[in-house]
Amino acid sequence: MSSHIVVFMPDGACVEVESGRTLLDVANEAGMAIDSACGGQGVCGKCKVMVTLGRTGGQAGDKLSKEELGEGMVLACQATVEDDLVVEVPVESQRGELQILMDQGQVETAVREAETPLASRRALRVGPPGQDGGRGDAERLVESLRVETEGRFGGIEVGLGALRSLAAVGPAENWEIEALVGDFGGQGEVFGIEACEGRGSYGVAVDIGTTTVVVHLIDTATGGFVDACASLNDQVAQGEDVISRIIWTQEHPDGLAQLREAARDTVNRCVRELAERRGIDVREIVAAACVGNTVMTHLLLGVDPAAIRREPYVPSVSSPPTLRAREVGLGIHPEAPVHLAPCVGSYVGGDVTAGVLAVGAGESSRLTLFLDMGTNGEMVIGNREWLMCCSCSAGPAFEGSGVEYGMYATVGAMERVSYDRETDQVEYMTIGGAKARGICGSGLVDTLATLLRAGALDRAGRINLDFRSERVRVRDERPEFVLVWGEEVGRADDISIGEDGIQNLIRSKSAVYAGAETLLHGLGLEASDLEQILVAGAFGNYLDAESAVLIGLLPDVALDRIRFVGNTAVAGARLALLGRDARQRMEGLARRMTNFELSVVPSYMDAYVSGLFLPHTDLRLFPSVAEKLELTA
Amino acid sequence: MSSHIVVFMPDGACVEVESGRTLLDVANEAGMAIDSACGGQGVCGKCKVMVTLGRTGGQAGDKLSKEELGEGMVLACQATVEDDLVVEVPVESQRGELQILMDQGQVETAVREAETPLASRRALRVGPPGQDGGRGDAERLVESLRVETEGRFGGIEVGLGALRSLAAVGPAENWEIEALVGDFGGQGEVFGIEACEGRGSYGVAVDIGTTTVVVHLIDTATGGFVDACASLNDQVAQGEDVISRIIWTQEHPDGLAQLREAARDTVNRCVRELAERRGIDVREIVAAACVGNTVMTHLLLGVDPAAIRREPYVPSVSSPPTLRAREVGLGIHPEAPVHLAPCVGSYVGGDVTAGVLAVGAGESSRLTLFLDMGTNGEMVIGNREWLMCCSCSAGPAFEGSGVEYGMYATVGAMERVSYDRETDQVEYMTIGGAKARGICGSGLVDTLATLLRAGALDRAGRINLDFRSERVRVRDERPEFVLVWGEEVGRADDISIGEDGIQNLIRSKSAVYAGAETLLHGLGLEASDLEQILVAGAFGNYLDAESAVLIGLLPDVALDRIRFVGNTAVAGARLALLGRDARQRMEGLARRMTNFELSVVPSYMDAYVSGLFLPHTDLRLFPSVAEKLELTA
Repeated sequence: MSSHIVVFMPDGACVEVESGRTLLDVANEAGMAIDSACGGQGVCGKCKVMVTLGRTGGQAGDKLSKEELGEGMVLACQATVEDDLVVEVPVESQRGELQILMDQGQVETAVREAETPLASRRALRVGPPGQDGGRGDAERLVESLRVETEGRFGGIEVGLGALRSLAAVGPAENWEIEALVGDFGGQGEVFGIEACEGRGSYGVAVDIGTTTVVVHLIDTATGGFVDACASLNDQVAQGEDVISRIIWTQEHPDGLAQLREAARDTVNRCVRELAERRGIDVREIVAAACVGNTVMTHLLLGVDPAAIRREPYVPSVSSPPTLRAREVGLGIHPEAPVHLAPCVGSYVGGDVTAGVLAVGAGESSRLTLFLDMGTNGEMVIGNREWLMCCSCSAGPAFEGSGVEYGMYATVGAMERVSYDRETDQVEYMTIGGAKARGICGSGLVDTLATLLRAGALDRAGRINLDFRSERVRVRDERPEFVLVWGEEVGRADDISIGEDGIQNLIRSKSAVYAGAETLLHGLGLEASDLEQILVAGAFGNYLDAESAVLIGLLPDVALDRIRFVGNTAVAGARLALLGRDARQRMEGLARRMTNFELSVVPSYMDAYVSGLFLPHTDLRLFPSVAEKLELTA
Repeated sequence: MSSHIVVFMPDGACVEVESGRTLLDVANEAGMAIDSACGGQGVCGKCKVMVTLGRTGGQAGDKLSKEELGEGMVLACQATVEDDLVVEVPVESQRGELQILMDQGQVETAVREAETPLASRRALRVGPPGQDGGRGDAERLVESLRVETEGRFGGIEVGLGALRSLAAVGPAENWEIEALVGDFGGQGEVFGIEACEGRGSYGVAVDIGTTTVVVHLIDTATGGFVDACASLNDQVAQGEDVISRIIWTQEHPDGLAQLREAARDTVNRCVRELAERRGIDVREIVAAACVGNTVMTHLLLGVDPAAIRREPYVPSVSSPPTLRAREVGLGIHPEAPVHLAPCVGSYVGGDVTAGVLAVGAGESSRLTLFLDMGTNGEMVIGNREWLMCCSCSAGPAFEGSGVEYGMYATVGAMERVSYDRETDQVEYMTIGGAKARGICGSGLVDTLATLLRAGALDRAGRINLDFRSERVRVRDERPEFVLVWGEEVGRADDISIGEDGIQNLIRSKSAVYAGAETLLHGLGLEASDLEQILVAGAFGNYLDAESAVLIGLLPDVALDRIRFVGNTAVAGARLALLGRDARQRMEGLARRMTNFELSVVPSYMDAYVSGLFLPHTDLRLFPSVAEKLELTA
């Protein structure tokens, strides 16, 4: 059997595999989630992909039209790898459930040979006792590992649990054993000894968002993506944003413990679900790389976050050490290493560091604006020479909160929306192709943009009640625009957008835009200097750049400079899970990034107020939008 | 105030102290336990010491005779330091209770400035937040420590518990705090953060003997000895020697856990007693250095010791990593580092490594025989060029077991014994000057020697029933020699030595002598090549060299080459507690020592059988003894 390289676009995820495997199978390993309702039987036709380079084997099936076949379309579950391939996965074929939040980002999923993952399972042949003068089993194990790991560790120690196992497993297995080896800040530790029984070696990449927790299950041997799971952060019950969570810890005697448990329980629920779904034992998960903003990081550790809200806004810890799962309370192998991404400051956390790592902004020669839209909006401007960052309280409107039919980017969320004035029709696409249930971030951006262009919405964000459409109406004294009639999707109520929600969205986009403007101004730069704008976050699968500029969320630059990069926080966590180089670069990035405190810049509030218009009060900042809307500055 | 150096002999313990302090106080700090029944009031006269160099201040008191004053004798509780001093502490003035087992050995108790103790409490002034651009409290703490410890650690991390404390203690104490810093194999870890409230910084040096556990409480700041405690190892209930303990773990489902708990409980009982006695919180004990033979080491860790008894007799672990107190179950600060002395092989353990370190045999140019008499007798021959070691099953006879009135070297044990044939009187000295309760190892050696010289005992170890003394008698058909009449010490029975006990002692001494003989022979050496013989173990305060040679326990060399060095295992543990250099040298020694397996040498058994005579079957090996006993070889 020969092996081939397969690259999946648009993510660039790349794997090397044996020939003969199906593209569906390989895509899964590469972390490219392809939809397949029939379980790979060639029946549902959902897994259409386009082969743009190389030839596949296998059968064509009857689910493809002549044109599709002509374009190079194949069914991923039927086509096999017989060649080096580049495969384009259309939006429609990407797996539905929560996929936005699980975007693979820029992660190179194939583990490089020389890398040191956070933990790995290594099959070892330890020399039998008595061959080197009588020193112990543990010392021979370390010697084997030292050879095996080629001096990658400063030292290698055998933990107490592993010492206990070794005494039983070593002789019973005739010294052919498996060692679980963790990287604790450059020092190796054997934290488990097991018989070679085909157990897996998995890691979890965990993104602890203020609102949503996302967990990716990764095969640490190949670096391949196995599965993902997301859940609302249980902490939401104690407040929607980080400030209200800090206040909770201060006003409740057990508040800190409560929030710590909530974070831990949320992560563990996801981990259990993944383990059950994949039929693995949670003890086969031997490493966890976690990222979160600074408050989430403190809360997961049970470290009082009070300092974050107290002048001079310096966190209690920026770079936590590599801990053990049992210390953190994670429900994986109890001795497994847990890496936490280092934070830059109180309001620029490990999720941003991870994101900058994942998109490579710190190594690029191009001047980049990296924007991560979560419940807070954090942004970084810079290149390989320098990096400046700031945070602004965007609020969770683009995560769907505070907007009546807003929702998280999960199945049934409208992620692309457009309105045709001529036909009075709303076209939309939902995640997973399910019946529309609400609107996620990217859908909300589209909605505002399309209604603004159509004239159904004015620049102040008010519904135009004179607009000739039966979709415009007043309900409970509040003007709204109906996007989906309830009867079309089998529900009693209609999915609409109202003025309250629109105002929340405008406040949110203005906070972000004003942040970028203030930061650029502080650096003596103009938006036009930005060579690329990378937008990360839980918007949906695709954020429409034109819509984002049209509503004034992003600066008015050439649209080809804007790229939506998905959940870069979890992408960075995956890199940290798989390589020490990534972990070290993350630490370097956290130290390199200079924090710019918006709250101390008086002009920030002015900029924010000026931004409470669509796209902005000052149209000179948005010439292309003024042109499209036929406005004059 | 000026400071002076005070050296206490015969141990050579040395401290630098301010002038004006009493010698009793200073001796305590130096680890030289001086007796004082009246609590330093100058009343009891027990603390007589001789000043051989320098002059003391303070009052003479009325407890000293003119001659004593003329010789330079002073009361340690009254004399004050005003000069550099050398002070000789007579046997009679050394503190009684369990002192033999707590002998300070060769330990230099003053901590050298540049050393890295296993753990220390460090007062730190951490820069307030906001001075370095917003990185966390923990990062500033590490920076302060890095400066403070002058690069002594490869890296410094802040553990989770310390991270949690720092968030509260740092701001509350205005960043003047105390950090508990442990040395985990060259990597520093902050495992506690506390307010500066005058808490102590103690360590325990723990010698886990098969029969007896000894714990020294040490001040890690000064290296000074604080107190000591000893206890019978609770494991004795599960067998007297290491082999029976291993068998116990194999024959009982919970045997390993049971023995692990027994070891742990014994140590913890001693630790609690010390803490109560000294009025300290066990959390003020921030480090533990443990030594034990290989089986004790495995059992303390809960690692199955089966491999030790199974060919090729290779232990499961030789050099355990530095663990945490909570992992081992020690009742001190739960995150405190616990160092375990590295073992050479299955029957030459960490107690021997520690002993060789303490006596400096591995750095000496003189060819040394180091003999550690515990329940097993281990010995090392060598110098700074090479070290060879072996172990022989001596059994616990010299620890008092298997001998009717034998006892551990505790208060009331007869530690020196001599019989005068002319007067038919037995002279003896007891530990602590208490009423005689039984006979410890050194007393047993003396007893055999003195009775042999007197002719009350023949060379086969039989009581001479024709010997003209009312002390010789037959009780329950067993011949015995009465050492102390019960009425003299207020007890119903008489303290005697009988033939069964004598046979056990002869077997034990022969096992040791045969070991030394076989090892010397294997090395092509003669006993006369030995430049020094250092004897360690729980014999008593002083082992009489002449007696030891007379009964054939030690080879017949010039008596000035023989030195009794006390409990070197605990002395080595104290060195490990106080310096990384000692810990590293210990590791080097364990690797350097070559194990010589006596059981595979057929001549060992012949040598053993030949040694079952007093002093030996072959009198050519003991010319000085033959001369003394007027025998011809």
